[in-house]
Amino acid sequence: MSLIRAGDLAMLVPEKGRPFIKRVQPGGELQTHRGSIRHDDLIGIPWGSQIRTHLDVCFLVLEPTLRDLLLRISRRSQIIFPKDIGYILLRLSVGPGKTVIEAGTGSGALTTAFAWAVGPQGKVISYDRREDMTSLARENLARVGLDDRVVFRTRDIEDGFEEEDAEALFLDLPKPHLCLTQVRSALRGGATFGAILPTTNQVSELLAELQQHTFALVEVCEISLRYYKPVAARLRPVDRMVAHTGYLVFARSVLCSAEEEALPDDD
Amino acid sequence: MSLIRAGDLAMLVPEKGRPFIKRVQPGGELQTHRGSIRHDDLIGIPWGSQIRTHLDVCFLVLEPTLRDLLLRISRRSQIIFPKDIGYILLRLSVGPGKTVIEAGTGSGALTTAFAWAVGPQGKVISYDRREDMTSLARENLARVGLDDRVVFRTRDIEDGFEEEDAEALFLDLPKPHLCLTQVRSALRGGATFGAILPTTNQVSELLAELQQHTFALVEVCEISLRYYKPVAARLRPVDRMVAHTGYLVFARSVLCSAEEEALPDDD
Amino acid sequence: MSLIRAGDLAMLVPEKGRPFIKRVQPGGELQTHRGSIRHDDLIGIPWGSQIRTHLDVCFLVLEPTLRDLLLRISRRSQIIFPKDIGYILLRLSVGPGKTVIEAGTGSGALTTAFAWAVGPQGKVISYDRREDMTSLARENLARVGLDDRVVFRTRDIEDGFEEEDAEALFLDLPKPHLCLTQVRSALRGGATFGAILPTTNQVSELLAELQQHTFALVEVCEISLRYYKPVAARLRPVDRMVAHTGYLVFARSVLCSAEEEALPDDD
Amino acid sequence: MSLIRAGDLAMLVPEKGRPFIKRVQPGGELQTHRGSIRHDDLIGIPWGSQIRTHLDVCFLVLEPTLRDLLLRISRRSQIIFPKDIGYILLRLSVGPGKTVIEAGTGSGALTTAFAWAVGPQGKVISYDRREDMTSLARENLARVGLDDRVVFRTRDIEDGFEEEDAEALFLDLPKPHLCLTQVRSALRGGATFGAILPTTNQVSELLAELQQHTFALVEVCEISLRYYKPVAARLRPVDRMVAHTGYLVFARSVLCSAEEEALPDDD
Repeated sequence: MSLIRAGDLAMLVPEKGRPFIKRVQPGGELQTHRGSIRHDDLIGIPWGSQIRTHLDVCFLVLEPTLRDLLLRISRRSQIIFPKDIGYILLRLSVGPGKTVIEAGTGSGALTTAFAWAVGPQGKVISYDRREDMTSLARENLARVGLDDRVVFRTRDIEDGFEEEDAEALFLDLPKPHLCLTQVRSALRGGATFGAILPTTNQVSELLAELQQHTFALVEVCEISLRYYKPVAARLRPVDRMVAHTGYLVFARSVLCSAEEEALPDDD
Repeated sequence: MSLIRAGDLAMLVPEKGRPFIKRVQPGGELQTHRGSIRHDDLIGIPWGSQIRTHLDVCFLVLEPTLRDLLLRISRRSQIIFPKDIGYILLRLSVGPGKTVIEAGTGSGALTTAFAWAVGPQGKVISYDRREDMTSLARENLARVGLDDRVVFRTRDIEDGFEEEDAEALFLDLPKPHLCLTQVRSALRGGATFGAILPTTNQVSELLAELQQHTFALVEVCEISLRYYKPVAARLRPVDRMVAHTGYLVFARSVLCSAEEEALPDDD
Repeated sequence: MSLIRAGDLAMLVPEKGRPFIKRVQPGGELQTHRGSIRHDDLIGIPWGSQIRTHLDVCFLVLEPTLRDLLLRISRRSQIIFPKDIGYILLRLSVGPGKTVIEAGTGSGALTTAFAWAVGPQGKVISYDRREDMTSLARENLARVGLDDRVVFRTRDIEDGFEEEDAEALFLDLPKPHLCLTQVRSALRGGATFGAILPTTNQVSELLAELQQHTFALVEVCEISLRYYKPVAARLRPVDRMVAHTGYLVFARSVLCSAEEEALPDDD
Repeated sequence: MSLIRAGDLAMLVPEKGRPFIKRVQPGGELQTHRGSIRHDDLIGIPWGSQIRTHLDVCFLVLEPTLRDLLLRISRRSQIIFPKDIGYILLRLSVGPGKTVIEAGTGSGALTTAFAWAVGPQGKVISYDRREDMTSLARENLARVGLDDRVVFRTRDIEDGFEEEDAEALFLDLPKPHLCLTQVRSALRGGATFGAILPTTNQVSELLAELQQHTFALVEVCEISLRYYKPVAARLRPVDRMVAHTGYLVFARSVLCSAEEEALPDDD
C-alpha cells in the first residue's frame, strides 16, 4: 500500500469542478470554496482515498499525472495541449537522459513535459525574450519540482542560441521561419526539429525556409482529440470539442546541402 | 560534432521507400535492393550524413526516434499507433523511473514505448498468454536494446497478475471487462489505468464494469492524426488517412467502494 | 436588378449578432434592440442592399438560403444540423416532385428541408405523437411559406403509418429499431430509408433489426464540419467546433427475404 | 407496388463490387463479368427485386439515388464528393426552380447534382474552357436524363459570363481569385457564391480578393465523412477514410462597396 508523505505532490479532485494540485506540507491547509483540508490529514493515508473538507465535501486524493500537471499550469499565454505534447515527445524522441532546447518558453507547459520526460539525468534549455514569461514558467516548474532540470535563458533567439550540437529543438514562436539559420547552428547533424503554428500561412512560410536550410524528412500534421461521454448504455461523443490548437511541423537537420544534391550524378 | 560509433542504432533512409533500422557492427553489411552499405563506412562519419550504396544510391543516416522504432517493429498483430502511444504515456504518467504493467504484449510496440519512456531505472512487466507473441516482442525489444527493462510473462491474466501495488497498467485485449477484478488486485490506490479498444461495444462493456470496480475519473476519447503534403505553395492535407485505430479508455483506481458513496449523507 | 417586394421572405443581418428572418409586409416594422426598420423602406430596394435602423445601425438585406432558414427555426428540441441534412437529401434522393415520410417531426428542421427540396410538386408527410411538436413545426413551416407541401400527422408510428408504397422515409426517433415492421409496410420495394441517432448503442440496436427486416446496402457514417476563420493572412480553423450531432444510418428496403437467401444454391 | 418500366434508370448492385447504372431498354442487355442480364427480364418486376445473371449471380435492382449517380459518373478529372455537394446545395440554396451558374464543368458531377436539385423548372449554366470536358459532362448528364436542364458553354470565364442577375454561382477552378470581377458582373445583389479549393494557399488568395469585391458573410469550412462498419455487435469506424477533398468557401454578393463603408459615420 502506498501512503501519502510530506513533500508529495497531491491532486485533490472534487466531484464537480476543477482539481487542486498542491505539495503536501506539515501544517499546511488547502482552502477551497467547498471547505478546507488540513495537509496533516493527508499524510499517512493511502493514495486513492477520499477525504472530506470541514464542510463535509468529498475530495479524491491522487498523484497528478503529467497531463494533470499540464492542465493546471498557471498560464499567461496559450499553452500547447497534451494531445500535441504526447506526439511531440515521440517525434523529437525526448526521453530519459536527453537534452532538448525550446523557444519560446511561454507559460512553460511544454517545458514541464520535456523536464518530466528527460528525467533527472536529462536537461531542458528554454529560451524566451520576455523576462515575465521566463519567471512565470520558472514558478510553474518549481511548483511541480522539475525546475532543477531546466535552464531558462531570457534572450531573443534571433541573436542565436548559446548551444551547439543539440539533439532536439522545438519552436513555439510566431515567426520560426526567420530564425532557421540560428536553429541550424545550434543543432548537431541528424537532430530532430519541431514547431507548432496556428495558421496555414505560417506553415507555408516555415516549409519554404526549411527547404533552404537542408532539413530533411519534413512532415506536417494536425492531431485532434474527441472525448466521449463515458456512459455504457449511451455512448456518444461529447457535444463540442477543440477544433484546432496548431499545426505540427517536424524535420531532421541533415548535413548535405541542397547544392550537392543538385550536382549531376556522373560528377 | 556527433559521430556514428560501433554499437549505435542507425536508421538508413532512402529517398523513396521504407527506411532500415540496424545496429552498426564492425564488419557488418546492409543489403538492400538498391545496393549494399558496409557498416564500417558508417563508423566515424557524422549523424545526418548521406551515404551511397555500391549501386550509388543515396541513403540518409539518422538516429531513429521512438516513432521510427515503433513504425519499423516486426509485427504479427495490429500495433498501437504513435498518435495513441504519445497520449497514453501522458495519461498513465509513464516516465523515467516508473514501473508499468501491460497486457497483452502483442508485437511489442507499446512495450517498446514504455521501455523507452521509463528509462534505465524503470521497469515494464508485459503479459501475453501466447508464447509466440512474447517471443516476437522480446526479439523486437532486443533489436533496439530495450529488452533489459522488460519482464515478459507468458500467462493468461484471467489467472491474475503476479504484481501488487502497481502504479500504472494498460490493457490491449479483446475483453478487458472480464478481468477487472484481477486488475484491481494488481493496482495500488490511485493507480492509472488505460485500455485501447477497436469497437464501441467493447467500450460500453468496459465502462459498465469500471463502474462496478471502484474506478474514478473515467475518460473515453479517440485521437486522429491528419498529415499534410509539406509543400509551401500548395499546402493541403493528404488524400487519405487512418480513420480509426481504437478508442482509448482511462481511469484511476480508487479506494472508496460504490456502496460507501451510496450511503445517505447523514449516516 | 432584383428588387424586394411585399410578401418576400427577407433576412436582415446585423454586423454582429443573429440575423432576423421576416416576411416583408406593407406597414410592418421590425423591432430590434439596435433600433427598428420599417418594412415599407425595404420594398423596392435591391436585394443585397444595406439599410439603417432609426438608431442608424446597419443591416444587410438578403434572401435567406435553406441553411439560413434551418438555423433560425424556433426549436423546442435538438434539430438536425445543415451538414447532416445536405447529405440526407442526397442519400434519400429527396428532390423535386418526390414524396417523403418522416418521424418524428420535432421542431421541423428536416421537415423544412424536405419541403424545400421536393418543390411545389412534391409532398412531405411528417409524423409526431406529440401535438405540441406538430403545432410548433406547422408554425415554423408556415412562417417560411412551405406548410402547404406538408401533411402533419399527430400519431405514434408504433400504430403504423397510413401510407404504403412510399419512396423515402427518415426516422429521427429514440428507438427506431422498435418500429421497422411498420416502416417496411409503408415502403415500396427499393425505397430509401434513413435514421439519425446520437448514441452508438442505438446504432447497434438499429443495425441488428435492419438485418431482420430485409434491408440492404446498410451504411453508417458521421459527418463533421469545421469552420475556418476567413482571414487571408492568418487562415486557421476556429478554436472550437461541434464534436457530434448524430450517427447517420441509411439502407434500401428490398424484396427478397433473408430466408430465401439462406436456401441452399442447388434447390 | 412500383414496377420497373422501359425507360427507367436502373442500378444493378452485385453482392460485391461496383454497381451498374443503365437505362432499361426493350431488347437491351447488360454484360458483366459475372454474366449478362436481359433488360426485358427487368421490365415489369418490382423495384427492390433480385435478378440473376445467366451465370446465376444475384444482382439487386434499385432506382439510383443522386449519390449513386454522382459516384458512377465517367470522370476525367477529380469530382466533387457527395458530402460536399449536399452542403453546397443548402448553402447556395439551389432548389426547385432555381437558376445556377457553375465553372468549370469538369466531368459534370456538380452539374448533375445542380440539374437534379433545380428540377424541370430550373436551369443550370455550366462553363468550361475545354471542349472535351464539356462533351464528357454533356454525355454524363444525357445518360441520366438531366441534360435538358443544362446549358453548356465552352468558354474561358476570364472573358466574362454571358449572364447577369444570377442568383447563385459556384466555382471549381484553380484560380477563382482572378475572375471575381467577372463573377460580380454575373451576380444580382445578394446572390450566393461558392467555391471549392484543394489548398490553403488558394483559400487565402480567394479570401483576399473577396474582400476587394464587396462580398459579405464570407465563410470557409471543410466537411469530413467517416464511415462505420455496419456490424451491430462490433460497431467501429472503417480503417481508412478520405482525409481531404477541398475547402469550401461561401459568400454573398452585396451592393455596398468597401469604400462606402469606410466613410466616416457623420458624412
